[in-house]
Amino acid sequence: MDSQFADRMSSVHKSFIREILKVTEDPSIISFAGGLPNPRFFPVSEVAEAAQKVLGECGYAALQYATTEGHPPLREYIAKRYAEKGLKVSPEEILITTGSQQGLDLAGKVFLNKGDKVIVERPTYLAAIQSFGMFEPQFLSVPLHHDGMDADALDRALSEHQVKLVYAVTNFQNPTGITYSSSKRREIADVLKDRNVALIDDNPYSDLRFMGEEVAPMKAFLGDQAIMLGSFSKLVSPGFRLGWICAREEIMEKLIVAKQAADLHSSCFAQRVVHQYLVDNDINSHIEKIRAAYRRQRDTMVEAIEESFPAGVEHTRPEGGMFLWVTLPEGISSLELFGRAIKENVAFVPGQAFFANGGGENTMRLDFANSEEERVVEGIARLGRAINSMMS
Amino acid sequence: MDSQFADRMSSVHKSFIREILKVTEDPSIISFAGGLPNPRFFPVSEVAEAAQKVLGECGYAALQYATTEGHPPLREYIAKRYAEKGLKVSPEEILITTGSQQGLDLAGKVFLNKGDKVIVERPTYLAAIQSFGMFEPQFLSVPLHHDGMDADALDRALSEHQVKLVYAVTNFQNPTGITYSSSKRREIADVLKDRNVALIDDNPYSDLRFMGEEVAPMKAFLGDQAIMLGSFSKLVSPGFRLGWICAREEIMEKLIVAKQAADLHSSCFAQRVVHQYLVDNDINSHIEKIRAAYRRQRDTMVEAIEESFPAGVEHTRPEGGMFLWVTLPEGISSLELFGRAIKENVAFVPGQAFFANGGGENTMRLDFANSEEERVVEGIARLGRAINSMMS
Repeated sequence: MDSQFADRMSSVHKSFIREILKVTEDPSIISFAGGLPNPRFFPVSEVAEAAQKVLGECGYAALQYATTEGHPPLREYIAKRYAEKGLKVSPEEILITTGSQQGLDLAGKVFLNKGDKVIVERPTYLAAIQSFGMFEPQFLSVPLHHDGMDADALDRALSEHQVKLVYAVTNFQNPTGITYSSSKRREIADVLKDRNVALIDDNPYSDLRFMGEEVAPMKAFLGDQAIMLGSFSKLVSPGFRLGWICAREEIMEKLIVAKQAADLHSSCFAQRVVHQYLVDNDINSHIEKIRAAYRRQRDTMVEAIEESFPAGVEHTRPEGGMFLWVTLPEGISSLELFGRAIKENVAFVPGQAFFANGGGENTMRLDFANSEEERVVEGIARLGRAINSMMS
Repeated sequence: MDSQFADRMSSVHKSFIREILKVTEDPSIISFAGGLPNPRFFPVSEVAEAAQKVLGECGYAALQYATTEGHPPLREYIAKRYAEKGLKVSPEEILITTGSQQGLDLAGKVFLNKGDKVIVERPTYLAAIQSFGMFEPQFLSVPLHHDGMDADALDRALSEHQVKLVYAVTNFQNPTGITYSSSKRREIADVLKDRNVALIDDNPYSDLRFMGEEVAPMKAFLGDQAIMLGSFSKLVSPGFRLGWICAREEIMEKLIVAKQAADLHSSCFAQRVVHQYLVDNDINSHIEKIRAAYRRQRDTMVEAIEESFPAGVEHTRPEGGMFLWVTLPEGISSLELFGRAIKENVAFVPGQAFFANGGGENTMRLDFANSEEERVVEGIARLGRAINSMMS
């Protein structure tokens, strides 16, 4: 009955990362493979208080069907946070989604016909490839430099192809940890302006900046052409599956139709609990705690890498987020390394999964956020042994 | 920039029901338009206890990312409930979805290429038209009789067309309230067997049977060819947005890939709270309370209709669920009636929204579940006046 399935299903496979995560469930393995935030900072007791308050004060409303757009006070809260960063966004331009992952699905639904062209970074966020991939587009990859997407290459791609969407993770990118500089953002905005193409600025990690200066979102440079994705997964916790998509009215109308067809609305119970938690607690000091810890974990990993990895191995130094990116010497396969690393009881994600159009065989992604410092040091030492054994 | 959007968005419009619900927000209007369960039966304090227990006992796990398939004990619970009804289903065949609405979206994604044919009931569940519609299929409508879909018409449609999916709401159908008889189920299974087509048995209301005998699900007649959708929205409450899809392994594999691309997983916090609530409480006695109330509300509505509506107006007598269906004399437009009804401060859903291929101009759906008995009597009297004024 395989012919019964839609064509889109033949080109997608079970998530590579998901398969890897299964291998790494063994507790003796130190895993840098996951994309999990550090649960130590989940505000469990504050969430418990928020849940009691919500159920005590408006339990019936919290458990009933609700509007597709999302809980109005939560949308207002998001708009207010954008305003604090100097970005004028109306709550009506915000749709609450089931994780920011759903924002990708909805954007794909609203924009992409089969064969439509989508520009992504090289490398790009794996789950975006999967999500857009469901709508059978053609991916074009533009190189990613230390300060963002190559603007000239982007310009060329847009001149040569009719492109529907440009997708970028502009802060502490997944997988590389790279952040777009302010001047690069301006360059990219100049390239996109006056072109009939939307930019999706996926920004789940922006609260996790632990060094350097905050850079204004693409929307500040590009205006309404930018669609913003955001997430509560890192700010509060992923278990609620709550994020949002922010877009101008004519796009929002379509997104709401697609959202309603997808799941009617995201859990209003979860939305109200998250909102209650946000207004009852000092979020900024909560964020500071996460940042300080992630900075220590990143520093620990970078130091350990520089101690344990042989010459010729390069790595990024993210100013925030959860991931750093390692480039092995040309010809060294990270997929082969993965096999050796598992024998050393350490895991990572081989980088080629993040390339929409192939490449990256000698790259890998490491999550520094979800391992305590001792484990980071030990894990990187193990990984160093695996790399050394391959390179010798 | 309208040309930027995908073709699928041009054929879908904002939900008609959603627009109607906006009109009916005015509290002076008695609305039979919504599809809302009666909040009086939401187990608010029991849910509060469950939430505290979950956060106290496994808060960090409840707030972290989780597996795409869903919380294993919740999947086991669902399998156990099927077993109690004599249906053998393994927990691995169950995927937790963000409301059973998402089951429609995922099934559409997994099965439907543009132009593929889907058989639906005439009339059918509006949100299924919207959800499948996103994948641009061709709908074929098969008449629905008092005991289910016309098996001969189904047979003819399957002989004349290559069909990917058959979609049916077999218990207390939305919008008509009709339940498929056991013999009709067998007939339909005989028609479908040995044909390369999947049946989606959408069953959100099965716990709401308040009279008559329970009938075995289509899977009991059809085996693995049946895909089952279920929901916690009526059993516990809709605000969690939790449902499930049950399918055999080769379909499940594809559904999991589609689910991961759609939202990674449904809220694991919500899943754990619902599971805790289910195991800590006497669900069957909870269901009995809802059934008794819905039965009274249905009886009240049926009596009021027979008193207030003129001769020539027909209605169904559902044995469960939330809706009944009214057929006005030929030539009387329920859309026009809607305008008059609003002036009388009463609302319903004009039936034509539930017809995938047109028709039903003289039909309407009434929700008896969400109005207390006094309001039912008063609302039906108002509606009777509006109908009488149109028919005279």
